[in-house]
Amino acid sequence: MTNSQVPPTTIQRLPIYLRCLMQAQAMRMPVINSLGIAEMAGTNAAQVRKDLSYLGELGTRGIGYDVDSLIAHMMKWLGLTEARRAAIVGYGRLGSALQGYAGFQDRGFNITAVFDADPEKVGLPAGDLAVRPIEDLPVAIAEEGVDIVILAVPAPQAQAVADIVVGAGVKAILNFAPIRLDIPAGVAVRQADLSVDLQVLSFHLNRVRADAS
Amino acid sequence: MTNSQVPPTTIQRLPIYLRCLMQAQAMRMPVINSLGIAEMAGTNAAQVRKDLSYLGELGTRGIGYDVDSLIAHMMKWLGLTEARRAAIVGYGRLGSALQGYAGFQDRGFNITAVFDADPEKVGLPAGDLAVRPIEDLPVAIAEEGVDIVILAVPAPQAQAVADIVVGAGVKAILNFAPIRLDIPAGVAVRQADLSVDLQVLSFHLNRVRADAS
Repeated sequence: MTNSQVPPTTIQRLPIYLRCLMQAQAMRMPVINSLGIAEMAGTNAAQVRKDLSYLGELGTRGIGYDVDSLIAHMMKWLGLTEARRAAIVGYGRLGSALQGYAGFQDRGFNITAVFDADPEKVGLPAGDLAVRPIEDLPVAIAEEGVDIVILAVPAPQAQAVADIVVGAGVKAILNFAPIRLDIPAGVAVRQADLSVDLQVLSFHLNRVRADAS
Repeated sequence: MTNSQVPPTTIQRLPIYLRCLMQAQAMRMPVINSLGIAEMAGTNAAQVRKDLSYLGELGTRGIGYDVDSLIAHMMKWLGLTEARRAAIVGYGRLGSALQGYAGFQDRGFNITAVFDADPEKVGLPAGDLAVRPIEDLPVAIAEEGVDIVILAVPAPQAQAVADIVVGAGVKAILNFAPIRLDIPAGVAVRQADLSVDLQVLSFHLNRVRADAS
């Protein structure tokens, strides 16, 4: 089974499983079964087994998965063993928060450059970095090896900035602007939406009230 | 079918479908079929049909779903038709960015209060609000009707702050700290992880390289 045959929905669940496994590791669990992963991830055991089967023959029937080796295998498979260099474009409040977000570094994503189109922001300190003009982006891609661009610009500017980013040769974009980007084939785009979790919580609140009535 | 019988994985996908439907609406599409939703959402048509079947008999076979009425129905079902009042606890860079995030308001989530445990931050402006001491939280829950608390505090403080939040009577928490919280039954918790999308992109970058080699 080559990677390109794995369903997109499985690929979206694997990082969730990885997070659960890391929690299990932190709790010093040596072994976990599919039900254990499923309960932490909010899915069912059959789904976990099916998703993990795409990665090879991993668990032992009746026993489960070795936590350490499954983490190592998943990280290699997801491409997380090599450090990724990411750049943030747009240094407003969200860009600043993302630059300081500890969860990126923990997963091997290093923010190595920060850009803004506003000349007044160029040169401002951004953590250990300084904000650079967006015209420097092609150099950062070609010479500094930036793999992924995180777009944290306002919605009205997002498409124009995305065009510059794509033109600079970026192959992976994470878009935080609440707008659907028109991006050529061959460039992977993910649409971030911080409200999804709130919507799920809203559903649970409704259910609690319904059960109480 | 009552809400409590709907699989958690379906509940997690519904907000994704809702976002796709809103994009379709913005593109002035009157009708969309399950394949159209699936392609926008990165899943398959059978999954979309199964997930939406939990909401009732909605589409017309061979034609599809009326976009406007499906949006209205999903929003009602997810509890998004009534405005939700959310509070942010922790007014650092992330808390500040979340307070200014336009995507919350668009989905009916109003940030009505911002808290911090640090006396030096109390009173600082936070958009149209001012940062309040965390001791005010019980009042905000009881008298001001805060439904959801967004935790944006550093990991070492997260559990202690969560205990205060739960003690104040909050029934829904979105946790941005990269730590698993110990929360009593009856309180819904979602663990935000901004690195999940980067991990999926990392996988795609690996695949692009594998295909090119």
